[in-house]
Amino acid sequence: MLETPYVAVDVDVLDRNVAAMAAAARGRGLALRPHAKTHKCLEIARRQVDYGAAGLTVATVREAEVFAGGGFDDLFLAYPIWPSPGRAGRLRKLAERVALRVGVDSVESAEALARAVGPLDVLVELDSGHHRSGVQPGDAARVAEAAERAGHRVRGIFTFPGHGYGPGLQQQAALDEAAALSAAGAGAEVRSGGSTPTAALAETGPLTEIRPGVYVFGDAQQVELGTCGWDDVALTVVATVVSRTGNRVIVDAGSKVLGADRLAWATGFGRLPEHPEARIVALSEHHATVEFPDEPPARGDVLRVAPNHVCTVVNLADELVVVRGGAEVDRWRVAARGANT
Amino acid sequence: MLETPYVAVDVDVLDRNVAAMAAAARGRGLALRPHAKTHKCLEIARRQVDYGAAGLTVATVREAEVFAGGGFDDLFLAYPIWPSPGRAGRLRKLAERVALRVGVDSVESAEALARAVGPLDVLVELDSGHHRSGVQPGDAARVAEAAERAGHRVRGIFTFPGHGYGPGLQQQAALDEAAALSAAGAGAEVRSGGSTPTAALAETGPLTEIRPGVYVFGDAQQVELGTCGWDDVALTVVATVVSRTGNRVIVDAGSKVLGADRLAWATGFGRLPEHPEARIVALSEHHATVEFPDEPPARGDVLRVAPNHVCTVVNLADELVVVRGGAEVDRWRVAARGANT
Repeated sequence: MLETPYVAVDVDVLDRNVAAMAAAARGRGLALRPHAKTHKCLEIARRQVDYGAAGLTVATVREAEVFAGGGFDDLFLAYPIWPSPGRAGRLRKLAERVALRVGVDSVESAEALARAVGPLDVLVELDSGHHRSGVQPGDAARVAEAAERAGHRVRGIFTFPGHGYGPGLQQQAALDEAAALSAAGAGAEVRSGGSTPTAALAETGPLTEIRPGVYVFGDAQQVELGTCGWDDVALTVVATVVSRTGNRVIVDAGSKVLGADRLAWATGFGRLPEHPEARIVALSEHHATVEFPDEPPARGDVLRVAPNHVCTVVNLADELVVVRGGAEVDRWRVAARGANT
Repeated sequence: MLETPYVAVDVDVLDRNVAAMAAAARGRGLALRPHAKTHKCLEIARRQVDYGAAGLTVATVREAEVFAGGGFDDLFLAYPIWPSPGRAGRLRKLAERVALRVGVDSVESAEALARAVGPLDVLVELDSGHHRSGVQPGDAARVAEAAERAGHRVRGIFTFPGHGYGPGLQQQAALDEAAALSAAGAGAEVRSGGSTPTAALAETGPLTEIRPGVYVFGDAQQVELGTCGWDDVALTVVATVVSRTGNRVIVDAGSKVLGADRLAWATGFGRLPEHPEARIVALSEHHATVEFPDEPPARGDVLRVAPNHVCTVVNLADELVVVRGGAEVDRWRVAARGANT
């Protein structure tokens, strides 16, 4: 008997999600380089590569080291990495060990990387509308030329259309992504984009590669965005009702297991797939307050909660409980948990 | 040279905070039972007890086990615990090993605990206005009587005035807390309340004990509530500027190290103590977008970020880097990280 709260992954649903995205990318002639920051698990990365992923995307040097250590030899560090002293040496070792690509978004970072690390395979990051890191498409050639002059091999361009994380915004974000990649890199070998909400809309031609992450598990955000249904949600947090007043219950999963992510348009702090009318109206570290339209569950009842944003949930857990037909069949270690450096 | 992002704790500021709260509680004749869920560190709990804490408060059975294993023998599990099978056996073992008190907030949970675990020292939880768990003050006697009938020793009552987490709400929350404890338990041996925002306002008489947690570190929320100043913030996340556009920079600390907590009234996703005019306007997993009123820092610059809510930050870190005068002097393991069960 497992003790709540714990993170459960339905392996049949996971496999279906992995296979479906691989088939969709293959069918459209796009390389699939899934973002491993979502799952941080060697076992899931292995499934993605077995289904035909061209390699993995990672967010940090430490994530790259963990996946390199697990036998994955083609890694894209899709981040505007700055070569601080310790990090520079680690990047150099990684580049000797695996096929490594890193992101740059300025002349300064391209030159600093060349000085501190040496020549690397780089992709220039574009801002396609999310306004986080990345250069405007019109500046990409200038950064690419500086990177070449500094000795790097410029393999292409990439962007993250994160502004597609809002109801009804996917189509516009996918158009913006395609426009930015087309404007900056008609001739670039790699034109990489894609997020889970926009992956199905990614245009072959402007793009050669997509990097979705969340699709392996799904989460409440994706359901509320319409990207997947409840049956596609592979990861849930299993929790016990510990308190009850009127039509509200408290379950023993709070922000320390569900994460506190909540975009402005979300209906709450997660959802209950078996109770789609229920709303998580408040979240503390060890309490979620769940409001039901009618009679709520009883104390001691066990419920499944789909978190809002699965990437931060996995990063809170030391292991995932792998289930099939509701029964535990395995445990997977979250090998890159806390791998932020 | 430490690699960013990392969690730094200034031990001199920490010690000052620990000493000040201990002195304030002693001066008003209140027992201090600090909440260890904030720090999850044996070294910090030891400092709190050395300064006169009566015992520790914990949120989960696993936290109780970690602190019992560290030699702490007086623990209050301030949570409406439900005795699922595995948890019941662990509670029984804990009660044999240390002085243990647990929370109950219903006749059902009191009876279930008696059946599954046996007689325990219990405190009845009251709702003093936060509307999470806890009974209304008028129902406390009924629950206490049921707990006594079930064989428990009812040691008193407790509440968490969490509705004091809003600008200008501390005074009202402290009054509500005192009113609830007075209404329910004039004769109770233990009348326990207190949160960091209301601790300074806790009334001796209605209360016999306070349970603040965050005060050891402080955080951006406490500064914005007026509970402490920037000089009292002992814990910060140290981050590097990796990208820069106009008056905005991206630093390499995102929600996977800072947490995503953001109450409606917060000015952003954390603050920069050395740059009080700057605002963290967006947060992704590995990016914080920081807007400056004028010229922002340069790429490669290292900044300190005070997170909004320190409890969830500590739960993301495997260790805390202990600094004095800016130099590393120790590392403390976050012994109860992820201890949610």
